[in-house]
Parts: sequence; C-alpha cells; structure tokens
Amino acid sequence: MPKVTFTYFNVKGLGEGIRMLLAYGDQEFEDKRIPKDEWPAVKPKTPFGQVPVLEIDGKQYAQSTAICRYLGRKYGLAGADIEEDFLIDQNNDFFTDIRLKAVAAHYEEDEKVKAKKQEDLIKNQYPILLDKLNKIIEENNGHIAAGKLTWADFVFAGMYDTLKVFMQIPDLDEKYPNFKKLRDTVTSLPKVKEYCAAAPKADY
Amino acid sequence: MPKVTFTYFNVKGLGEGIRMLLAYGDQEFEDKRIPKDEWPAVKPKTPFGQVPVLEIDGKQYAQSTAICRYLGRKYGLAGADIEEDFLIDQNNDFFTDIRLKAVAAHYEEDEKVKAKKQEDLIKNQYPILLDKLNKIIEENNGHIAAGKLTWADFVFAGMYDTLKVFMQIPDLDEKYPNFKKLRDTVTSLPKVKEYCAAAPKADY
Repeated sequence: MPKVTFTYFNVKGLGEGIRMLLAYGDQEFEDKRIPKDEWPAVKPKTPFGQVPVLEIDGKQYAQSTAICRYLGRKYGLAGADIEEDFLIDQNNDFFTDIRLKAVAAHYEEDEKVKAKKQEDLIKNQYPILLDKLNKIIEENNGHIAAGKLTWADFVFAGMYDTLKVFMQIPDLDEKYPNFKKLRDTVTSLPKVKEYCAAAPKADY
Repeated sequence: MPKVTFTYFNVKGLGEGIRMLLAYGDQEFEDKRIPKDEWPAVKPKTPFGQVPVLEIDGKQYAQSTAICRYLGRKYGLAGADIEEDFLIDQNNDFFTDIRLKAVAAHYEEDEKVKAKKQEDLIKNQYPILLDKLNKIIEENNGHIAAGKLTWADFVFAGMYDTLKVFMQIPDLDEKYPNFKKLRDTVTSLPKVKEYCAAAPKADY
C-alpha cells in the first residue's frame, strides 16, 4: 500500500471530502492537521502556497477538486463514460459556484460590504441556487449527478457543515432536506463512518 | 455530424476556449452571441441561469470547465492516464484561482473596495501567482500541463485577452512571455486560426 499523507487545517471545508474518499478507498493515511501558527512554515512547501495537499509516495497532489476527481476515478466513483463524467463535473462545478459565493461573503474584510453581500445572497441568490441544487439531488436519486454515488457526493458532504456556517441559514437542513440526507448518505458508508467516528473534532 | 449550437455573449471570456475546441475538433457549430438585452429571455432556458451553454443534438451542456474537459476528451486533448488527467485538472484549477481573483476585483461594485482589491492583487498577489503560472508553462514545454497540448491550453488561450483587461497589467505580455506564447500556440493551430479569422470581433 502506498504511503499517503494528507495536509490541511483542522476543519472540514475543502479537506473532508478527500479524507472521506481515502477512507472509502480503504487507504490508510497520515491525517496532518496543521495549527494556524505552523502555516507560514508549511506554505512554501506546497505546490501553490495552498492546502489541501495530498502526498502519495512522495508525490504531491494539490487543488481539492482535482484531487477528488482523481481519487474518485481510482476508487470506482467516477462516471461510466465521458457523458456521465461530464454530468458529475457540471453539477459539481455548479455546487462550486455556490460555495464560492458563500466563501467570498464570509471572508469579505470590509464589514459594510460583507453585510450587503450576505443580505443579497440570502434574499436574492441562495433561494434560487439552493432550490436548484436541492432539485438536482432529488432528480439524481439523492446524489449530485448520474443518479448514483460519485466523488462529487464526497465533495458536497465534506463541505456541507462548513457551508452551513458561512451561509448563515439556520434552517438549511429543513429547508432543503436533500442536503443533509446526502451528507448522511456519505458519512454512513461503512468505512467513512469509521473514519468519522475516529477523526479529531472539527466544528466545521 | 451532430447539430451543435454554442450560446454566449460576444466576448471571449469563458466562451472562446469552447469555440476554439469545437473548431479544433472540426465540429461545425452555430455561434450564437446574444446581445445583452436578450439575456433576460435566454437566462431561464439555460440549465443554471448562466452561459456559456453548449447544445449537442438538443442536449444542453453547461459549466465552462466541465465542457472544455468533455470536448478535450472527445478530441484527443486529455491526458494519457489518470495521472496526466490529474495534472491537467490541477494546473487548470490553479489558473481558475487566478481568474476568479481578477473577476472578483473587476466586478466589485463598491468603488473603494474595488480599488483596494486591485491594489492588493497587483502589489501582493499577482506577482507570486503569475510568476508561478509562467514557470509552470515553462516547465511544461509551453503548455499548462503534461508537457503537451491539452484542453487546458484552450481554456487559458480563450481567457487570456479578457484577463488582460481585468488585471490592468499593461505589460503582461512582456512580463510573463510564456502567456502570450501559449495563447499564440493555440490560435495558430490551423483549424483554430481559421475560426479566429472568421469570428466576429470581440474586444476581450
């Protein structure tokens, strides 16, 4: 078995999907969760000055979506052909669009601009986007795409708790019931469940 | 030959890479460039309320990166295996990171915040990110990844003129010579060159 190290912070965010994919693939890995004060020392050793970084037998893999797609193909969680692969990519990119909006508002430094952005998202954008995503999951048999379990479900499930915090929609679980259901589908997969039970506590 | 329609605005941006891929694949297509005032009527007919949208024999394909990867696999512009595909995805995602920063600053509505963001990008972020990207292209034989022509080169080449406008770096061509060189590599491919010569003028 290859020697695998996964480096990220002690949050779910862009990392938890990768950790859960590794668990699903029955791949043992060192789960490095670096404290914020060690980040300046780690940053220059990463390919793009960013984490997450996956290391397999000394070879570094960066960019969370690219890593998830790669592991998905390794572990039988990709499409059956390029048409299915396209659908997975397409719907995952739509989810990324939503995530990036939430992230941009959450990290906006100007407090007045931040409040304005949050309000616009909650009032005008999230209702349309999240309703659309909820329907996509409905139409795909409880999954992001292709009507079956794919790596994109892991991306979604890994990010969901983080998004809930960023989005500031307290009743997200109830409003869009397919979201929590899909998160639970992934975290209930036997090996993933084992990983989750043993993982260090991360609030989001 | 399938009936193909491509819908976008009369700009390069997220669309030109797709148009050039279709040309490279010798695929005839209707190049629909919708005027801004027709957008409200078109929007609800798109899968995610966004363009670009590619239509092949009545089936809609959305999300520009997913479309480019899909066409790349169709036209022999993907990796030879999942390791090469990963590298293409990873480096393309890094380019997307840069693009999203430029786009966020360009479309920031608050003028003071916009100026601050642009200044931070030009002073602190672009020098590191663009130098890195320039080196990646250097190391990859003039390409984005895998040392050869791939669909990610089309993404880059299609976006380059738009990014130049958004980034406000007048000497971008000279400062990072591999950028323009790669753009020219793609636009000089015989069928792509033919498309470009016949395409409606788009400033960026």
